[in-house]
Amino acid sequence: MLEDKIKQVIRDIPDFPQPGIVFKDITPILKDAALCREIVDAFADEVKHLNIDVIAGIESRGFLFGLMLANKLDIPFVPIRKQGKLPAKTISESYKLEYGQATIEIHDDAFESGTNVFIHDDLLATGGTVVAAAKLIEKLGGHVAGFSFVINLKFLNGEGRLHRFSENVVSLVNYK
Amino acid sequence: MLEDKIKQVIRDIPDFPQPGIVFKDITPILKDAALCREIVDAFADEVKHLNIDVIAGIESRGFLFGLMLANKLDIPFVPIRKQGKLPAKTISESYKLEYGQATIEIHDDAFESGTNVFIHDDLLATGGTVVAAAKLIEKLGGHVAGFSFVINLKFLNGEGRLHRFSENVVSLVNYK
Repeated sequence: MLEDKIKQVIRDIPDFPQPGIVFKDITPILKDAALCREIVDAFADEVKHLNIDVIAGIESRGFLFGLMLANKLDIPFVPIRKQGKLPAKTISESYKLEYGQATIEIHDDAFESGTNVFIHDDLLATGGTVVAAAKLIEKLGGHVAGFSFVINLKFLNGEGRLHRFSENVVSLVNYK
Repeated sequence: MLEDKIKQVIRDIPDFPQPGIVFKDITPILKDAALCREIVDAFADEVKHLNIDVIAGIESRGFLFGLMLANKLDIPFVPIRKQGKLPAKTISESYKLEYGQATIEIHDDAFESGTNVFIHDDLLATGGTVVAAAKLIEKLGGHVAGFSFVINLKFLNGEGRLHRFSENVVSLVNYK
């Protein structure tokens, strides 16, 4: 089963980025080209019944499988980036972190109003960044067609915060 | 010709990230799935005669075509990231910016000594980041098998700084 195969490759890194957190390291997945293809194929299979026009990937690990998925589906890829990184005119959305806040941005001509945008990131934790990404999509007049993650840390309940944007939440590896 | 096709899609953004700089925006390329495939195919064709074991991509735009190229060649992808982002044990390399300095890192178990590592980033400017990436590869006992960029700003002469690591510098779009 793909979930087990991926779990065997993911590394647990204790106390990163801070004491008490066990970080799920996906970099060993990237060393396995066949597994990467299986992941993209699995995402494509999960979303083929949805009417998706664009994949939006969140900087920077969301760029990895996000662009591959968009190419597999033969649709555009749009980057959502940290503040100050996108060169043309942007709109931005800020969200709270444990200490302080962060801001992400999207080009204001990333897609046309009415576009069905599917959001991808490598990992869903509490969902702060992804909710901000969904708000950016809606601010530009897009519909959030759903979300995909390689990993869903279900015990943090991020998924519940996404359902007001879309019921379609795809995750290949779940930690309960 | 692919170079002309890509040039027609790249956007010039004046005065980004600072006054007087004309930034080459690759985000319109990402909207064209067929063009993305052509780019990856062109890179694969240019490097097929080289003996490459691993693709290293530089955060974050180097993740985009870097992972796709690795998957196309059926070899591992290794991320080189900004300081503090990689969760496991890393080695780091600092380099000068116009004001101050920056540091990039690689996992110290990213590949075995003697591995032929090909470095990818989206754009070659003065080469500071890429030279630091090449030093990281050599610090881990790897051989730098070459470099690929979507864009080479040839007028900044970054390429000359790369030749001491490898003569193989592939760039699809050149600005003279």
